[in-house]
Amino acid sequence: MASPVSPLAPASYPTLPPVPGVRFASFAAGIRYKGRSDLMVAVCDPGTTVGGALTRSLTASAPVLSCRDHLKGGSGRVLVVNAGNANTFTGRQGVKDVADTCAAAAREFGCKPEEVFVSSTGTIGVRLPAEKILNALPQMKDSLSDQAWMDATRAIMTTDTFPKLATRTATIGGVPVTINGFCKGSGMIAPDMGTMLAYVFTDAKLSADAVQTMLTTGCDRSFNCMTVDSDTSTSDTLLMFATGKAAHDLIADAADPRVADFRAELDDLLIELAQLVAKDGEGATKFIEIKVTGAEHDQAAKRIALAIANSPLVKTAVAGEDANWGRIVMAVGKAGERADRDKLAISMGGVVITRDGEPVPDYDETPVTAHMKGQNIDITVDVGIANGKATVWTCDLTHGYIDINGSYRT
Amino acid sequence: MASPVSPLAPASYPTLPPVPGVRFASFAAGIRYKGRSDLMVAVCDPGTTVGGALTRSLTASAPVLSCRDHLKGGSGRVLVVNAGNANTFTGRQGVKDVADTCAAAAREFGCKPEEVFVSSTGTIGVRLPAEKILNALPQMKDSLSDQAWMDATRAIMTTDTFPKLATRTATIGGVPVTINGFCKGSGMIAPDMGTMLAYVFTDAKLSADAVQTMLTTGCDRSFNCMTVDSDTSTSDTLLMFATGKAAHDLIADAADPRVADFRAELDDLLIELAQLVAKDGEGATKFIEIKVTGAEHDQAAKRIALAIANSPLVKTAVAGEDANWGRIVMAVGKAGERADRDKLAISMGGVVITRDGEPVPDYDETPVTAHMKGQNIDITVDVGIANGKATVWTCDLTHGYIDINGSYRT
Repeated sequence: MASPVSPLAPASYPTLPPVPGVRFASFAAGIRYKGRSDLMVAVCDPGTTVGGALTRSLTASAPVLSCRDHLKGGSGRVLVVNAGNANTFTGRQGVKDVADTCAAAAREFGCKPEEVFVSSTGTIGVRLPAEKILNALPQMKDSLSDQAWMDATRAIMTTDTFPKLATRTATIGGVPVTINGFCKGSGMIAPDMGTMLAYVFTDAKLSADAVQTMLTTGCDRSFNCMTVDSDTSTSDTLLMFATGKAAHDLIADAADPRVADFRAELDDLLIELAQLVAKDGEGATKFIEIKVTGAEHDQAAKRIALAIANSPLVKTAVAGEDANWGRIVMAVGKAGERADRDKLAISMGGVVITRDGEPVPDYDETPVTAHMKGQNIDITVDVGIANGKATVWTCDLTHGYIDINGSYRT
Repeated sequence: MASPVSPLAPASYPTLPPVPGVRFASFAAGIRYKGRSDLMVAVCDPGTTVGGALTRSLTASAPVLSCRDHLKGGSGRVLVVNAGNANTFTGRQGVKDVADTCAAAAREFGCKPEEVFVSSTGTIGVRLPAEKILNALPQMKDSLSDQAWMDATRAIMTTDTFPKLATRTATIGGVPVTINGFCKGSGMIAPDMGTMLAYVFTDAKLSADAVQTMLTTGCDRSFNCMTVDSDTSTSDTLLMFATGKAAHDLIADAADPRVADFRAELDDLLIELAQLVAKDGEGATKFIEIKVTGAEHDQAAKRIALAIANSPLVKTAVAGEDANWGRIVMAVGKAGERADRDKLAISMGGVVITRDGEPVPDYDETPVTAHMKGQNIDITVDVGIANGKATVWTCDLTHGYIDINGSYRT
């Protein structure tokens, strides 16, 4: 859209190396936008396994329902993603449009319809002009490239102000493999998950079960720890495709010690992507990391951290560069998890503000105020109960969010 | 504060009649504000019963903890409320400051400390200058008046842009009684409840048990159905004092049929006060009523309605006068309660937009857009499961909210 690039955008974007066994094409199908690509296709070689994490929304989109069904097969050959129309709340016609797209892609690229995965992102409740996708697929077949990561990423952007890509290398049994990922998302972002589409591709040779387990675990540590505005999308989708082109032995089980390095790199890549989404949160001017320790268990810590991250009062205080830690106390209190008011310890920017339930003696706000003027805000809270801990990421709540969302459709 | 009066403020404020047995005084104690009253005392005659509803925050303020304790006695003689400092997260000193205030008020007005109720609202984490309250009490004793409702209301305002008062009459056993109430609250407002202080006074003769039961039920239908920003305060307090001066027989049980009229009027008064808080929501330009029907049960309906009411995307769309009903679909989906996507029916301003999970044929947005330009926005959603229903109230999310909360302390 017309928004300026987020001040939190990275200084440069990585150039992703090819992942053997996968090629991309993008296309200006005119689904909603003019003068830009809005359709992306990824085609994987036979033998590619797939796993996924999908929104838990009870009003999930037709593409999400289709992905959930197709994931049962564990085989992923084609990914079709459009921007500008979410194909959500579009009734039976929406379901048919996804089925037609799967059938057409299967014919065009030589696989079964249930090996095709479709995602749509954009406006809710407007019929998807599926014929534009069906007409585009044959033309896209001729332009498939193993280099076109940036084009693919740009084709799925909606209110995003910058493309989000990341790459890692790992070794499995001594064999180097590549993990590439890209995603989109900016608003309607909350666990689990946002209007967030994320795709990971690797040449590792992994069973579908292993892919699924790694992805579920990784998602819980990354995208499910990130929120922009607490609004859960109907379309959230994270898929990982493993082409199996690498020369190592098949990994059947995610617990296999030979994939420890791979899993660490995968988690790291997912965290980078998730943080990029928070950094492109609608109207964001500050990136906020919230660490909670001392909770009853990790899940409690996460709930407390998310209560802080989703508090409009905390987020507006950060936007105003105001070290208003009282709002953090409030957010801890509303989370509904155990916290010892008389042991609560809060730090911002590494400066201890409260300890044992009171401001520290002679608390000097000066260094905290200086920290608040930066782009990266660190909040740590110890709630004094047990050893549960969690880290979540979010952004501030600014006039830009109001501007973008008060006039999205118009 | 400096904010202009909410456009949703009532055209005029009611003049509240005296309630026999209760008198008020207010005072400029200089706790935080300059040039305005910031301290209020209500003194009730002996025999006054009291009930209350307090925040469920786990980081509740020292005054809330004291009220919770004193409510066990059921007798309420003095109410002391200050604005500008919440006496929250102030450690043992904060607890002592409340106890000192109760002791001083008990001496001054001739009752027991446990018959004194204290509330504080304002900044969190700064020690309350309790000596200013202790010094003021003797001076306030001389100015007690049974007419000073408006002064009392103004003395407890913080970011409120207008005073919030309401009055009703009812009959109990043929005897007319008065119910007066006033409250403050504007931000950090959500069930259960907001930075919201509300006080109700009546001359009805009610047991403490009856007062408590009526208030709990009434709060659930009023303040607990209202949200501004989803942030639950550490200080929320609703108290009702019944002086027993009316000439009817004592009502021991809230289920007594003789108080049916009284309870209906009380509920109505609480709803009016709750709606006034939403209408003074920080930055509010639109008042939003959300009715959900067809849910699994009433509690499910309330959760769905609150998911809509707390959605930043719904609230910014209303601020932008954008009939973006897709975001309502999203909010229904994230509520976590059962909803039949293929039966979902959404109306705005009485215009049916979706039915059976799809936009109605030839949906014409014109009348809905006209409705969005008004000040009162009606959203109704039927989720197609059973007969659960709920109504909640909120306001839009505007630049004004960001302005107010990005610079509250500075």
